Amino acid sequence: MTHIGPGRPRLEPRRRAGQTPRAEILDAAAELFTINGYSNTSTRGIADAVGIRQASLYHHFSSKDDILDLLLAETITAPLEFAEALAKDPAPAAVRLYALAWFDVSQLRAARWNLGALYLLPELRGERFAAFRERRDTLRRHYERLAAAASAVPGVEQLPFRLVESVINIRSDEGAAAEYADRLIPDAILRLLGVPEDPEQTRSAAMELVDLL
Amino acid sequence: MTHIGPGRPRLEPRRRAGQTPRAEILDAAAELFTINGYSNTSTRGIADAVGIRQASLYHHFSSKDDILDLLLAETITAPLEFAEALAKDPAPAAVRLYALAWFDVSQLRAARWNLGALYLLPELRGERFAAFRERRDTLRRHYERLAAAASAVPGVEQLPFRLVESVINIRSDEGAAAEYADRLIPDAILRLLGVPEDPEQTRSAAMELVDLL
Repeated sequence: MTHIGPGRPRLEPRRRAGQTPRAEILDAAAELFTINGYSNTSTRGIADAVGIRQASLYHHFSSKDDILDLLLAETITAPLEFAEALAKDPAPAAVRLYALAWFDVSQLRAARWNLGALYLLPELRGERFAAFRERRDTLRRHYERLAAAASAVPGVEQLPFRLVESVINIRSDEGAAAEYADRLIPDAILRLLGVPEDPEQTRSAAMELVDLL
Repeated sequence: MTHIGPGRPRLEPRRRAGQTPRAEILDAAAELFTINGYSNTSTRGIADAVGIRQASLYHHFSSKDDILDLLLAETITAPLEFAEALAKDPAPAAVRLYALAWFDVSQLRAARWNLGALYLLPELRGERFAAFRERRDTLRRHYERLAAAASAVPGVEQLPFRLVESVINIRSDEGAAAEYADRLIPDAILRLLGVPEDPEQTRSAAMELVDLL
């Protein structure tokens, strides 16, 4: 029997994604939250799924809300960092928007669990998740700024972010989003914004940015 | 004191949208499901919100799942009927798709409660909601058929339905979707599909269909 944390024996051998007990707890929680629902999942259930005692879980996280907050943060961190790097780049807005949409779609599509399905949880409206909401709003505004700069059509700047997040709904309804969504959605965004440039050129310039940043 | 159902006294005077006890129960449930969450709402809580006894609620609905099923059905019934009427209409696919998107966006935007936020509930994946899922899939396929007929871009036919349902996410994030979304989203769909016709002409033909059907 292996030991984790301060010497607590594990109930079952490890069988989770993740190299550390903390990562295993997050993986089990993500599975249970997305499959059974947040309210229907207890920290006891998460501990059972990892094969540790509930008390061991509390060495790593002080509450179920803390676990959710961390999981949600992970869905935003990489695209937000990428958006911040893009904001300083001199490339045309359409190229940067394409790069951001490509990056974000591919991570939403390929993530092990469809955690974006939790964005609509009423629990997220509380004070406890204000910091997460603010970070997601910041990401949304990055999209809106780039879209407004790339398009002359009033109001349309709010739609690219929504089209990107529709990957979450596609995964929820169909079990998975096809890999071609990575290109389908950014291509659709260019047309939706009425960007006049050659999409092929915008795409290849965007892919260079993705590799670079 | 007024009486409802088989002579049960009401605890409080009516203060709900709806002309009948059944409609009041649905309205209270819709509010509680969307504000507090489905799992966090009990039939007791719904009865309290209406000002009736829990036993009176069970004269109208046999379970919380039944109430959810009916509320979800209401979000689909009108657009599905409209889509079925459109399927038999000889108008060009782009015109019919515009009409469907306009109709659906305006009802998702103006509905008293943002019930579409419940579409991602894990509970809906069970057998109990198979009929609802099938009806929503039928609506989705109406969109996909019209979009495929209107567009030469492969794969893009799945996106108009997603863009329409993004009204749910906009309402969830911003509290409301602006009225101009009724036109913004169908217009964006035409561009996204690469429909070459004059949008003004497609729009006015579509609005005639909305008035007619």
